Amino acid sequence: MKQRKITLSENEIPEKWYNIVADMPNKPLPPLHPGTKEPIGPDALAPLFPMELIKQEVTPEKWVDIPDEVRHIYSMWRPTPLYRAYGLEKVLDTPAKIYYKYEGVSPSGSHKPNTAVPQAYYNKQEGIKRITTETGAGQWGSALAFACNHFDIECEVYMVRLSYDHKPYRKIMMNTWGAKVFPSPSNATEAGRKILAEDPNTTGSLGIAISEAIERAATNDDTKYALGSVLNHVKLHQTIIGQEAVLQMEKAGDMPDIVIAPFGGGSNFAGLAFPFLRMNLESGEHKIRCIASEPTSCPKLTRGVFRYDFGDTVGMTPLLPMYTLGHNFVPAPIHAGGLRYHGAGVIVSQLLRDKLIEAVAHDNVEVFEAGVTFARAEGIIPAPEATHGIATAIAEANKCKQEGVSRTILFNMCGHGNFDMKAYEDYFAGNIVRHELSTAEIEASLAKLDTPLIE
Amino acid sequence: MKQRKITLSENEIPEKWYNIVADMPNKPLPPLHPGTKEPIGPDALAPLFPMELIKQEVTPEKWVDIPDEVRHIYSMWRPTPLYRAYGLEKVLDTPAKIYYKYEGVSPSGSHKPNTAVPQAYYNKQEGIKRITTETGAGQWGSALAFACNHFDIECEVYMVRLSYDHKPYRKIMMNTWGAKVFPSPSNATEAGRKILAEDPNTTGSLGIAISEAIERAATNDDTKYALGSVLNHVKLHQTIIGQEAVLQMEKAGDMPDIVIAPFGGGSNFAGLAFPFLRMNLESGEHKIRCIASEPTSCPKLTRGVFRYDFGDTVGMTPLLPMYTLGHNFVPAPIHAGGLRYHGAGVIVSQLLRDKLIEAVAHDNVEVFEAGVTFARAEGIIPAPEATHGIATAIAEANKCKQEGVSRTILFNMCGHGNFDMKAYEDYFAGNIVRHELSTAEIEASLAKLDTPLIE
Repeated sequence: MKQRKITLSENEIPEKWYNIVADMPNKPLPPLHPGTKEPIGPDALAPLFPMELIKQEVTPEKWVDIPDEVRHIYSMWRPTPLYRAYGLEKVLDTPAKIYYKYEGVSPSGSHKPNTAVPQAYYNKQEGIKRITTETGAGQWGSALAFACNHFDIECEVYMVRLSYDHKPYRKIMMNTWGAKVFPSPSNATEAGRKILAEDPNTTGSLGIAISEAIERAATNDDTKYALGSVLNHVKLHQTIIGQEAVLQMEKAGDMPDIVIAPFGGGSNFAGLAFPFLRMNLESGEHKIRCIASEPTSCPKLTRGVFRYDFGDTVGMTPLLPMYTLGHNFVPAPIHAGGLRYHGAGVIVSQLLRDKLIEAVAHDNVEVFEAGVTFARAEGIIPAPEATHGIATAIAEANKCKQEGVSRTILFNMCGHGNFDMKAYEDYFAGNIVRHELSTAEIEASLAKLDTPLIE
Repeated sequence: MKQRKITLSENEIPEKWYNIVADMPNKPLPPLHPGTKEPIGPDALAPLFPMELIKQEVTPEKWVDIPDEVRHIYSMWRPTPLYRAYGLEKVLDTPAKIYYKYEGVSPSGSHKPNTAVPQAYYNKQEGIKRITTETGAGQWGSALAFACNHFDIECEVYMVRLSYDHKPYRKIMMNTWGAKVFPSPSNATEAGRKILAEDPNTTGSLGIAISEAIERAATNDDTKYALGSVLNHVKLHQTIIGQEAVLQMEKAGDMPDIVIAPFGGGSNFAGLAFPFLRMNLESGEHKIRCIASEPTSCPKLTRGVFRYDFGDTVGMTPLLPMYTLGHNFVPAPIHAGGLRYHGAGVIVSQLLRDKLIEAVAHDNVEVFEAGVTFARAEGIIPAPEATHGIATAIAEANKCKQEGVSRTILFNMCGHGNFDMKAYEDYFAGNIVRHELSTAEIEASLAKLDTPLIE
């Protein structure tokens, strides 16, 4: 019988996270103060994050120890399986060998708990009683709810009202793990009350929800804030994915030519790709192509500019050197809510600028076609975010067929679609539409920026 | 680090299913013709099932080979993990050691694909083009849709209209795997049209859906019918669960004193328990207690009678010797739809009658309490059916604490609750109510029976 899953035992869960900054030829530029535009140090983050996470955010060390307790919680679902996609290869009739790392086996169904757990752990270590966060469709909020429940930390999630009203199941999942979920804007914060006073019927936005969560953390000593992507320490935690995958590919007696992952803020991509990129960086040879896969409706990597910009919509965060569409950019309401972010994390942005990684964009209809093909061939229904990586993998496998060459392709199947069946219903009903942005639209968004240019 | 998951490699997937009939001291009584009341042979089933499954239904052989192709499909999610429930043990503060076998990692999220896959396989082998079935909440229908898609067999699912309208996500899951889903009663069958003509607004029932699915199979040569529980061959296929669990308990250096599983028609329970019961039967010692866990609202094992009864509501199937509440019994509309069945499979009924297994019943509120305790302690939100096994495990662990003894408890965590969040919402809102049946209610249902008595 041909082996389909490459599994690892619990004692093979990596003992350290990998910090790619140590191996980067050009280090990321420093964040700037939003007011003074001067470089800021780690202290500026102290009101929002526990000190251990701030240290990880700026550490130059190549390896960071994973606490035993975190590894033991990881063992609830890790190591995750690496699959050889025999079904997909057959349907595509491709000479390519296709593998995927499956992160949907986690409690909340995606890769997000990989960072939610250590974030909750370090907060607990520093005596924090409450963690706040924002969530759109709910993937990040439910991962943090799960992690906080484990450490008996109160979890407050500000959920964009549109999602709160229309996608109640993620909210109930968070409640089941004991989290408090507020429709945002809420009456629990100054920011929320102000917006509600102006427009009581607003459906909210991720930008507003971030403002509410940050306000709660900034104004309460026992409360901190947590973010599910973009930041360096989040990417660091996610490298557990790629480190396992390296081991698993070695066990399969194979190594990818191409590594692919969906791209929202960058932690999904970083998680799988960085441990493979490490091989390129250490050897000085560009052997493995790493491709970030984004939606055409939010194409910061393929059509954005590299400059300083805010991480949030309101302009409260430090200025970060990133590929961006402009912090006021409002992406189309695609089902892949996790990819609807205007900018790219700092490390990934620098890597792209240095041409050490690649990026592609896929249309909304194309990714659902890919998702259904995958569900029928491999039996797992992917989350809308995950379909982007699948679409890139299919495109590369089709290239192999056209060129008559075999390459080994690995992608991050970052989550299941059990909470996204409405998206598939819309697809089957023909209600998923193409979202191509015109150059004028992108230029109009970028023209509004007055943040510092780079070079 | 304490080991949490006991995993097996793909080459440890069992090569044979275990047929407990070979080891039973008293063999099951024969099924009777619904009209003549005479024993019937396997041929009577030929219009509905492929011959290989009929052979398995009546085989006296102890072991049945699992085809390589079926094992390869199993490898998409099998072997499933066996967990040591450290989190639950801690919350309960019990000296008991608690383990659970987790079947929620399958594509459709429960143990159902274990039998859906071989059923589709044998139908394919015999050239069948279409399989029909009924489904309530959708667990069985989605498992069969997944399996049929794999073999390129058309799948027609008759879904009780109430569920079709109120639980659309399982329906979309089936569509994603290419199945046709009809709200039942439908216009696709004589039975459906007749009922619709009488009451166009009926919400349907499982009994009606079975009639529709059977009619389609009986009246089309290229079409067969599939059932997700109750029958012997279904139980046979599910023994893959318990066989893996025996291996895993051995690897853990432990062996259960008590084995527990939820009980609907019996395949969930049979799947985990039979390979452990085998040890009792072969040794002649009653070392391992096997407990079936049912809802108090549908208590055929704990409060029903052992006599011949129909498998369906309408009275079309052969008469089976079973514990039953009467085929006209209508269980309360609890969320654990998979446990709302009036009778128990033939083999399990005989085992209970011979006191080789035990049964307990839990109230609806108690099981949701258990489900939330489990979700918070172990990080996996269980399906409402699965919460019944959890409730029994918690009760036994609490007994250990009261008695100051340590026992090893194993239960079947047969599925996740990702498609059942509405049930948890109802629970948190206080809308889950107790369902105690009075003796008069049960007697009234049984009084309607005119089926043959036993002894």
